[in-house]
Amino acid sequence: MLKTVIIGASGYTGAELTRMVADHQGLELSGLYVSANSVDAGKPISELHGWLRGQVDMPLQPLTDVSDVASDADIVLLATAHEVSHDIAPAFLDAGCVVFDLSGAFRVKAEGFYPDYYGFEHQYSEWLDKAVYGLAEWNAPQISQAQLVAVPGCYPTASQLALKPLLDANLLDTEQWPVINAVSGVSGAGRKASMTNSFCEVSLHAYGIFSHRHQPEISAHLGQDVIFTPHLGNFKRGILATITARLADGVDEKQVTDKMETAYQQTPLVRALGAGKSAMLQSVQQTGFCDIGWSVRGQHVILTSAIDNLLKGAASQAIQCINIRFGFSPLTAIV
Amino acid sequence: MLKTVIIGASGYTGAELTRMVADHQGLELSGLYVSANSVDAGKPISELHGWLRGQVDMPLQPLTDVSDVASDADIVLLATAHEVSHDIAPAFLDAGCVVFDLSGAFRVKAEGFYPDYYGFEHQYSEWLDKAVYGLAEWNAPQISQAQLVAVPGCYPTASQLALKPLLDANLLDTEQWPVINAVSGVSGAGRKASMTNSFCEVSLHAYGIFSHRHQPEISAHLGQDVIFTPHLGNFKRGILATITARLADGVDEKQVTDKMETAYQQTPLVRALGAGKSAMLQSVQQTGFCDIGWSVRGQHVILTSAIDNLLKGAASQAIQCINIRFGFSPLTAIV
Amino acid sequence: MLKTVIIGASGYTGAELTRMVADHQGLELSGLYVSANSVDAGKPISELHGWLRGQVDMPLQPLTDVSDVASDADIVLLATAHEVSHDIAPAFLDAGCVVFDLSGAFRVKAEGFYPDYYGFEHQYSEWLDKAVYGLAEWNAPQISQAQLVAVPGCYPTASQLALKPLLDANLLDTEQWPVINAVSGVSGAGRKASMTNSFCEVSLHAYGIFSHRHQPEISAHLGQDVIFTPHLGNFKRGILATITARLADGVDEKQVTDKMETAYQQTPLVRALGAGKSAMLQSVQQTGFCDIGWSVRGQHVILTSAIDNLLKGAASQAIQCINIRFGFSPLTAIV
Amino acid sequence: MLKTVIIGASGYTGAELTRMVADHQGLELSGLYVSANSVDAGKPISELHGWLRGQVDMPLQPLTDVSDVASDADIVLLATAHEVSHDIAPAFLDAGCVVFDLSGAFRVKAEGFYPDYYGFEHQYSEWLDKAVYGLAEWNAPQISQAQLVAVPGCYPTASQLALKPLLDANLLDTEQWPVINAVSGVSGAGRKASMTNSFCEVSLHAYGIFSHRHQPEISAHLGQDVIFTPHLGNFKRGILATITARLADGVDEKQVTDKMETAYQQTPLVRALGAGKSAMLQSVQQTGFCDIGWSVRGQHVILTSAIDNLLKGAASQAIQCINIRFGFSPLTAIV
Repeated sequence: MLKTVIIGASGYTGAELTRMVADHQGLELSGLYVSANSVDAGKPISELHGWLRGQVDMPLQPLTDVSDVASDADIVLLATAHEVSHDIAPAFLDAGCVVFDLSGAFRVKAEGFYPDYYGFEHQYSEWLDKAVYGLAEWNAPQISQAQLVAVPGCYPTASQLALKPLLDANLLDTEQWPVINAVSGVSGAGRKASMTNSFCEVSLHAYGIFSHRHQPEISAHLGQDVIFTPHLGNFKRGILATITARLADGVDEKQVTDKMETAYQQTPLVRALGAGKSAMLQSVQQTGFCDIGWSVRGQHVILTSAIDNLLKGAASQAIQCINIRFGFSPLTAIV
Repeated sequence: MLKTVIIGASGYTGAELTRMVADHQGLELSGLYVSANSVDAGKPISELHGWLRGQVDMPLQPLTDVSDVASDADIVLLATAHEVSHDIAPAFLDAGCVVFDLSGAFRVKAEGFYPDYYGFEHQYSEWLDKAVYGLAEWNAPQISQAQLVAVPGCYPTASQLALKPLLDANLLDTEQWPVINAVSGVSGAGRKASMTNSFCEVSLHAYGIFSHRHQPEISAHLGQDVIFTPHLGNFKRGILATITARLADGVDEKQVTDKMETAYQQTPLVRALGAGKSAMLQSVQQTGFCDIGWSVRGQHVILTSAIDNLLKGAASQAIQCINIRFGFSPLTAIV
Repeated sequence: MLKTVIIGASGYTGAELTRMVADHQGLELSGLYVSANSVDAGKPISELHGWLRGQVDMPLQPLTDVSDVASDADIVLLATAHEVSHDIAPAFLDAGCVVFDLSGAFRVKAEGFYPDYYGFEHQYSEWLDKAVYGLAEWNAPQISQAQLVAVPGCYPTASQLALKPLLDANLLDTEQWPVINAVSGVSGAGRKASMTNSFCEVSLHAYGIFSHRHQPEISAHLGQDVIFTPHLGNFKRGILATITARLADGVDEKQVTDKMETAYQQTPLVRALGAGKSAMLQSVQQTGFCDIGWSVRGQHVILTSAIDNLLKGAASQAIQCINIRFGFSPLTAIV
Repeated sequence: MLKTVIIGASGYTGAELTRMVADHQGLELSGLYVSANSVDAGKPISELHGWLRGQVDMPLQPLTDVSDVASDADIVLLATAHEVSHDIAPAFLDAGCVVFDLSGAFRVKAEGFYPDYYGFEHQYSEWLDKAVYGLAEWNAPQISQAQLVAVPGCYPTASQLALKPLLDANLLDTEQWPVINAVSGVSGAGRKASMTNSFCEVSLHAYGIFSHRHQPEISAHLGQDVIFTPHLGNFKRGILATITARLADGVDEKQVTDKMETAYQQTPLVRALGAGKSAMLQSVQQTGFCDIGWSVRGQHVILTSAIDNLLKGAASQAIQCINIRFGFSPLTAIV
């Protein structure tokens, strides 16, 4: 049993991680932590997330001494704010823990990315270099060797899983940037009080137009410029991405279908729905699946890709990475 | 044209009042105010409430000098916190303004009520004595003479409009307290950032069990003990109250129907739906109506009563009171 | 491995049963059936319920020959319409299957109940006599011996689990009927096209006032008259029941708390939240739990009870009954 | 007072038209009609749309004799199915009525459009030629002379109002087709029982990919190919369109802003929000407004456009057309 701690356990992703680690027969949930000055320190996690009551009632401990926690942990899951992950991951890594970071702190290696999009200078370029991007269906070989896995963001997961098979096979006209419109549930903004997330203020709208930090994350890992427009939807969980792209000359629907189906033939958590099919949010909410549909007319392809933002877009993808890294069966604690 | 100012205009009720005053042919919207230290001071109200854009773009002014505002106002609408209303209403009243207070500061005359339920001692017993309770369909004669109208709370409006015809006619067994279960939309909690109102935290539940301040408001004005259990629902606007009561000996459905229909024959904003009918939230949302249905079996009656909490439960009832007080046609700016 | 068939598998409850039977290590999912003339016959269940895709893609077969199906089944789950269950259960029983009926066809033994509330005369009084009511936390000894288990309705489960500890301990004043107000998600009405369930028509309202068939089911099994008012809520899943009752003379909060906590000390799927606590819908949605809170003031107690209507109110309670009947560990395939 | 009849008054758009015609000081609501075999014939409209109770309780009459109805009407509003409008509009027109058709029957003049997208051959090419497309802010001169106004569809209204100022000014690169992603509330599918609209089946998804009939309507009237992908959202009312387009060489944000603001300076129902602003669904729901925001980076522009699908996307735009046609003040019965 690998001793596993979750840092930032009080949030929505933290709670999902908690349940999955507790369910995982190869992992031992050995600690839940929140920041030292959190109002939630000391409370059982089930007081914040009532659905966990009777399943996991472990207290949320204040994270006061990283090295102390690190000394007794094999695996560290960071469900912390970006800058917090940046600050504390190295200490866990130096202590020999295997770290799965669900923040954006180690996802993108491009110069200038962190100051521009996260507002801080990255101090750990060595670890940034070593970090493996945890897009589980595509990077398993690297993940299996990594000490630091940067689990992808929710929008990037939905977007890349749809586009990657076609880009890698050169089926797209790369001159015309794919247009990614995506709608996320409110839980994507985290568990906190804010006017933006206030029930009566939530209504469908686009935000972060041309400026969302997931745009460069998607572009960097795809090696393709894209236009990415996120939206807030009036639901709690899930992401639906609708992607419009121009096909390379002469590419037809059959080629698209072949690539999509081949790409995901061996990866049960990505369900290639088939040509003419459209992903539905409801089919993936509360699951670790990604559903992808596609349609072709003339020179254009439209892809739809749906995930649960807290699971395939965060917690269950982290567990996928753990399963790969430590040789557990791929679906352990997920399906 | 009567000069009308709205204090506390930034909230949901304030915005509804703003629209109705602007639409009212007998009123001139002469100022919108927020507390002196509000982050919203200086912004146009339509920046907070985008639907008002192009209709009312008046700025929200900081309320720094009550007497200055009072000197140029005929009518003052207080959509402020309870203690703020308590503190500032007297200055407006002393300046000769007619005040319509939408808070709880002047609704209940009972000894000990304010310390117990609002956490402050009432300092203005004289004004509390003079205040008229603005349950528009029932208290029109007093409202027409009042200088201070305490507009009823949202739950009390829905509850009293349903129960009052039967209680006044002695049709209920008063020994068994009527059981009022009511579900409110989230806007009832006001426009603010809080965990409770956070989109992902909202799900149907009861709160304030045996302890909500609207229970004594209802009991005091009905002259009848009741059990009142409020609930938060996963919708923005509206209240549905379901009321179970025991009938006095020998009372049958026909008597109930007669009283309900007679009570509201001349009051177009209360729609008596008839025996066997059930009020639907959707029929009253965004309207100034109260819908009431009732059913009788054996010794019991079940009443359902639906209003929009921001309108009939707040803003439009205040406008009804203005219409009564100043002799405007009853539905002006409401339907 | 016990061969298990599900009749009526196309509905929402049928889909949940399908997943749980497929997950259950002691059961073999050996067939999914729909009525012979269903438009869904022949389709994989995952075409109707996209979330099952890749997990259970078994086809929905038309039920043409009950004895044929019965001859190869150990366990039969009936998620069928009431009259269908009534008509086909005996053939399964006569063939020796153990039948778990999720309809109302075998729940209530009272004379006149079926014509009055279900619109048909019951033809199988012998099986009705033998049927055991599957309220899992209370009737385990009888369930463990039964050939026919009538799994309780969703409202009755939420209501009885809250009231039974207090009634059995004579803590309530039985002269004043407990008032049960409950709100159900729309899935309670089943998977079908109807104006009532149409998205734009759904808004909170009471229905079946004084006439819902779950009222006599609750009363019969509690041995206590109650007033039960169901409501439709604007959410997909879950039931919240708020119950107001009068305590017997001299009963105080401590006695209530003792009984509630003792009653559910050994039953992990009922979570007694404690005095002053209120059940939240969100904590039980998508789970097999029932959460119960209670508050006492003076002579009154208010209980709140929340379940997922499709799980604890239907499918997972059926699995609990299977676990009891066949000696599996109580939480198998549920938590 | 112009005598106005509404055909197809039982639907959601019909109900909105009913309220607006009843409120309009220049119109007399002289009849509400449904198809001759409708189950709703004979019922008061307020029985179907409870919010109208006490405001308009006029019965829905079966439409048995068009010429009879036509003989006593000045204005006919057709809120009927496409083929029904096609079949009955000519008789009203021949009788001299001015017809405002809210269906798709007279919107597009292109050859082959009706068989391909609506499944019927158009029989009235003369009326199709004469029909004026009722995009109110753009076609006022023609509307003011028309006998037949084809009121635009909901998606086309949101899309064209955003794109037209830029296309007309040649600010877009027309080689790269604008990508329109739009999400509609469920009321767009009409008032009817269907599995698709069933509450529990509704979740965000794209539909009609590459094949929706509003794509050619948009393209035809803009004179520009577009890629249009409609989505169903989990809300009752409103449309949000997010449009991504490539700017013509050398075009910058200032030029875009100038054109957008100039275009809608005199049209109060279109609110140009400004550069960097994003339209919010909530700001336009239940209103006759269209809100449009835009952002530019490099060679791309992203426009967001929000309307209420039943009002600016149907009923209130029809009233705008009536106001233009008969010389009423532009906002009569709308704001």
